[in-house]
Amino acid sequence: MTWTPQPLDFRSDTVTRPDEVMRRAMAEAEVDDNVIGHDPTIAKLEERAAQTLGMPAALWTPSGTMANLIALSVHLERGDRFLATRGAHVLVNELGSAAWLAGGMPDILEHDAGPGRCTPDALSAAISPDGPYYTLRTRLLCLENTHNAAGGAVTPPDEHAQLMSVAKQAGLTVHLDGARIWHAAVALEVPPAALTVGVDSVSACFSKGLGAPVGSVVAGSVEFVERAQRMRQMLGGGVRQGGVLAAACLVALGRVDELAESHELARRLAAGLSEHGWGVRTPDTNIVLADVPDLRTAEEWLDSLGIRTSRMAGKVRFVTHRDLAATDVEEALRRIKNGV
Amino acid sequence: MTWTPQPLDFRSDTVTRPDEVMRRAMAEAEVDDNVIGHDPTIAKLEERAAQTLGMPAALWTPSGTMANLIALSVHLERGDRFLATRGAHVLVNELGSAAWLAGGMPDILEHDAGPGRCTPDALSAAISPDGPYYTLRTRLLCLENTHNAAGGAVTPPDEHAQLMSVAKQAGLTVHLDGARIWHAAVALEVPPAALTVGVDSVSACFSKGLGAPVGSVVAGSVEFVERAQRMRQMLGGGVRQGGVLAAACLVALGRVDELAESHELARRLAAGLSEHGWGVRTPDTNIVLADVPDLRTAEEWLDSLGIRTSRMAGKVRFVTHRDLAATDVEEALRRIKNGV
Amino acid sequence: MTWTPQPLDFRSDTVTRPDEVMRRAMAEAEVDDNVIGHDPTIAKLEERAAQTLGMPAALWTPSGTMANLIALSVHLERGDRFLATRGAHVLVNELGSAAWLAGGMPDILEHDAGPGRCTPDALSAAISPDGPYYTLRTRLLCLENTHNAAGGAVTPPDEHAQLMSVAKQAGLTVHLDGARIWHAAVALEVPPAALTVGVDSVSACFSKGLGAPVGSVVAGSVEFVERAQRMRQMLGGGVRQGGVLAAACLVALGRVDELAESHELARRLAAGLSEHGWGVRTPDTNIVLADVPDLRTAEEWLDSLGIRTSRMAGKVRFVTHRDLAATDVEEALRRIKNGV
Amino acid sequence: MTWTPQPLDFRSDTVTRPDEVMRRAMAEAEVDDNVIGHDPTIAKLEERAAQTLGMPAALWTPSGTMANLIALSVHLERGDRFLATRGAHVLVNELGSAAWLAGGMPDILEHDAGPGRCTPDALSAAISPDGPYYTLRTRLLCLENTHNAAGGAVTPPDEHAQLMSVAKQAGLTVHLDGARIWHAAVALEVPPAALTVGVDSVSACFSKGLGAPVGSVVAGSVEFVERAQRMRQMLGGGVRQGGVLAAACLVALGRVDELAESHELARRLAAGLSEHGWGVRTPDTNIVLADVPDLRTAEEWLDSLGIRTSRMAGKVRFVTHRDLAATDVEEALRRIKNGV
Repeated sequence: MTWTPQPLDFRSDTVTRPDEVMRRAMAEAEVDDNVIGHDPTIAKLEERAAQTLGMPAALWTPSGTMANLIALSVHLERGDRFLATRGAHVLVNELGSAAWLAGGMPDILEHDAGPGRCTPDALSAAISPDGPYYTLRTRLLCLENTHNAAGGAVTPPDEHAQLMSVAKQAGLTVHLDGARIWHAAVALEVPPAALTVGVDSVSACFSKGLGAPVGSVVAGSVEFVERAQRMRQMLGGGVRQGGVLAAACLVALGRVDELAESHELARRLAAGLSEHGWGVRTPDTNIVLADVPDLRTAEEWLDSLGIRTSRMAGKVRFVTHRDLAATDVEEALRRIKNGV
Repeated sequence: MTWTPQPLDFRSDTVTRPDEVMRRAMAEAEVDDNVIGHDPTIAKLEERAAQTLGMPAALWTPSGTMANLIALSVHLERGDRFLATRGAHVLVNELGSAAWLAGGMPDILEHDAGPGRCTPDALSAAISPDGPYYTLRTRLLCLENTHNAAGGAVTPPDEHAQLMSVAKQAGLTVHLDGARIWHAAVALEVPPAALTVGVDSVSACFSKGLGAPVGSVVAGSVEFVERAQRMRQMLGGGVRQGGVLAAACLVALGRVDELAESHELARRLAAGLSEHGWGVRTPDTNIVLADVPDLRTAEEWLDSLGIRTSRMAGKVRFVTHRDLAATDVEEALRRIKNGV
Repeated sequence: MTWTPQPLDFRSDTVTRPDEVMRRAMAEAEVDDNVIGHDPTIAKLEERAAQTLGMPAALWTPSGTMANLIALSVHLERGDRFLATRGAHVLVNELGSAAWLAGGMPDILEHDAGPGRCTPDALSAAISPDGPYYTLRTRLLCLENTHNAAGGAVTPPDEHAQLMSVAKQAGLTVHLDGARIWHAAVALEVPPAALTVGVDSVSACFSKGLGAPVGSVVAGSVEFVERAQRMRQMLGGGVRQGGVLAAACLVALGRVDELAESHELARRLAAGLSEHGWGVRTPDTNIVLADVPDLRTAEEWLDSLGIRTSRMAGKVRFVTHRDLAATDVEEALRRIKNGV
Repeated sequence: MTWTPQPLDFRSDTVTRPDEVMRRAMAEAEVDDNVIGHDPTIAKLEERAAQTLGMPAALWTPSGTMANLIALSVHLERGDRFLATRGAHVLVNELGSAAWLAGGMPDILEHDAGPGRCTPDALSAAISPDGPYYTLRTRLLCLENTHNAAGGAVTPPDEHAQLMSVAKQAGLTVHLDGARIWHAAVALEVPPAALTVGVDSVSACFSKGLGAPVGSVVAGSVEFVERAQRMRQMLGGGVRQGGVLAAACLVALGRVDELAESHELARRLAAGLSEHGWGVRTPDTNIVLADVPDLRTAEEWLDSLGIRTSRMAGKVRFVTHRDLAATDVEEALRRIKNGV
């Protein structure tokens, strides 16, 4: 009989489960049909999220992927060129829908200002002014904060502001993929709204590290949200009594500050992995990317130790979250050290 | 001060709210990340739904609109012609996504066999054999049972079988929009699987008249469901701990037989409206379409009476459901009779 | 050894070949790169065509199919509902691109005012006013004059004006598929511009019955043509020294009046086919649709007689054109009468 | 009165005009309807082009842009990832249709093996093996030979073979944008077929430097060409008596060897521009990219000298071609030297 170690789940912070408080909020949620009307709990969440994100209005969506897809679909016309940083979620993790469905032709900004970040100069150089009718039009900049493929890296408000300045001078629309904007805000010790200054739209998730089972928002102007609502319906993202989910999202929104604990866990984990000899950058937030000699071998070995991870940008990705305790991180490091 | 009558909500059966039993099931649901893994409650629902629908496999989706969109996207190639009955949900109520997103070119089958139903001969005549490369290819038949725009009309198993026979002989794929297949099965006193014989895919909803807040399935072969899963993710319909919703869908699935009560209410309502002088067909299920002299005037008048309805196919649509009691129907008829 | 009769080509008027005069014009055409500049002969054609069609501007395209596709792509947004008459070329003969590429959700107008024509009342009834965000938006009316599937039927200016009035009052954009608008103008003895009054765009072909090998135009406002030019480039319809083709189109444009001869041939053919016992309407222009007992048998039989035809709307289609003489029509009728 | 110098047109080799021989061939071309049948001159061109390119079959298209678009549309499914070198025509010069219409999500290969060329290692590293259902699938490699944005740079057969080996081992489909494959073959002194070894499809143009006014081909397997033909029709690229254009393409195909003269002109021009102090690489073929201190100023200055150029990849692009003589190049260099 094989002894199977208790699995430690570092695959993603999307695995966090609703706790009792959250489940009770869901069970007690006031609800209504959110397609032909407006579910009151969804309405409340949208209002709070908009406020927190510093935007005029917000729209609930079943996923962050849909939130991004809606934003790009609203912003882009057929064939419009858009810029995103290498490894951006909209480029790599959304099954190409930014291209085939939203209609955008992407171009890539390298991380020349640090992990997940490009310099204003690089952005400026990448923007081409409009030419004759037979030339591409650059229309959108898509930022991501924190940047997943760069290991949860943050872009601070001043750098954000500089990029916005370049983008706006060039007449670009800006969408911010803020799936983990809460993590960025906590790490930078600024309100989330400080990270959305000047953007035309921002997405944010409640199911990443905050325990909410399902739900994101996309926020922008009132007119943007009206168009986004129609696009959500087109994609099949219009749901009925979604208040049962929004109730959990509201609880999650009240717990943003607790993310600091996951960040602390990630730093501890990174230090331990580094001692183990793996290439690891001190994480800004809750994602640790480990550069290992052989990816496949490392993954199988970790798996055999009961340590569940994922793969990103050619590295092993460990994500810390509220359903992992400090003892879990220590246990993971112990297993890695001992090989059992 | 204006006296406002207690509103009676006949807008749709999508307005039904989860009751205590359902909310408890949701609060106690076992859950897991359903994107990178398989949520156990979703898995259970998918298995049961597949079994009930008589299909090899099923996939949970956030809405019936997405279920249909996924099916059409999997079945159709760019520009393929598909046939649907006049007023079909995929033609009229899904914002054109069957065309622009799934890529299909629709053609319309009239209701020559009765409300919502076409004859095998009409179907046969509408199918054109494949011609040279520059000609349209007819590839899909989309049926709907019950048929919403035809007032919740049912297609009995024998008629279904005849249509399937024509479609299959012509090599067509068949998708059944079964958003209210439960209603059809109850009205016809057959198991739901009797209404899916031979189809390649079927969608079904738990949020219509059954109280589940959010959730549908699309069912088909194992290979179909694999492709459907990828398409669901593309559209942003992949959710995390969706088990909280699937738990409610499971409760709903156990309550299908109770739909007979809504059907009874609909028949009573239809009789009353008919006495009032409005053109009403005795309903097969829970939808009553009333032909009124002037649509806008009628809607405003009903609204002033606190009777909320919707508009479909140029008529006033009343939908009965589990959150309406027999007394509500009587009250509605009383207000209509008295004009207050 | 089998005797093969000299084939008589009634498949389409697209088979007409350039004659010596036209070939000489092509060989002498002044040309330039029409992507990065403006070919002078194309420019001349576009100006003349715009003038003849009564529109502010026009754009050359390689085909009528592309002309229609461009117009619909410019006019429609994702999922917009558009109306077209049953059997319209954009619905039936363009491989579904009006749906999957231009993004439109079609609905069908029956020919209740005569072949190829609908009544203003039917149009009015088919237009639904905009509803809430989750409802289809009707945005475009697509007319076709002459109407191919209706046997080259014409819509006279007064009927056109009535339909335009209804469409404009409802805020619809109107595109006219005028692939054979020249035929309509000649048959009705009006200038082509009399048939485009009020439309937002119109397509017209020079390769149908006029001998030009390749080429169509789509005409509209200056702003429309600018957007159309970009769309043409997207589809790969931007060509270089297209003046060699436009020169032929200019010759064709000068020959429009000669189409009356083809119409005379068509009437003679129809009379003969009617005597033979086939169901034939007296043609308005150059297309004769014959209702035959068995389509496949009839086609094979005609083929064995060296009479080449095509199939349309479930009938045998004969098209007369400038490369057929009166003696060819008599010969065809003789063969049909004698069965050899 | 301003003296205007005789303009020297270095904008592109697409500006070449048909000469008398070519015009005569066009005027005498045997033609037929190429939509409902097969134009004999197009058929002849397609056969010869397929043979020359070493492919089983070929299809005429109105433009190279359409040839590429068709290939990508046939090869890609919704959201498939494809790889192309930085600045590739399909990425930068086709208005995003590779993304929004063909449905591909592009990723960029840098020119790490020299201008326009990537190393097999870089290609290998860029290919990700298929992961779970929610991950991008890499399906296509798009090469370009000569590479326009890299200044007409060639990829020799051995490097091509190495890239093909990596691509095929990873199961990728390969499309070669061979708009100027003739130039590459002449420069490398190999037959064109030596540059298509192993590809699944290749496009090639006759309107670039060869004098043909309009026309390209896309070549591949017989099954590919059948699917391509349908796609061409969908896009509106099906034309009628296209033989008038194909006749010119056939003449062009017989003149490929003369491209060596344009290459000689380009080398002479590059040497002169280099003497002038502009950053210029010795060209492989007929495109010279000049790195200038200030792009806009340089363009305006050249324009004032009657030297017409274009802009590519942030540089001034000069293209030599058969309508420019050695004396034209000398005259251009004289004006640049003297500033008048």
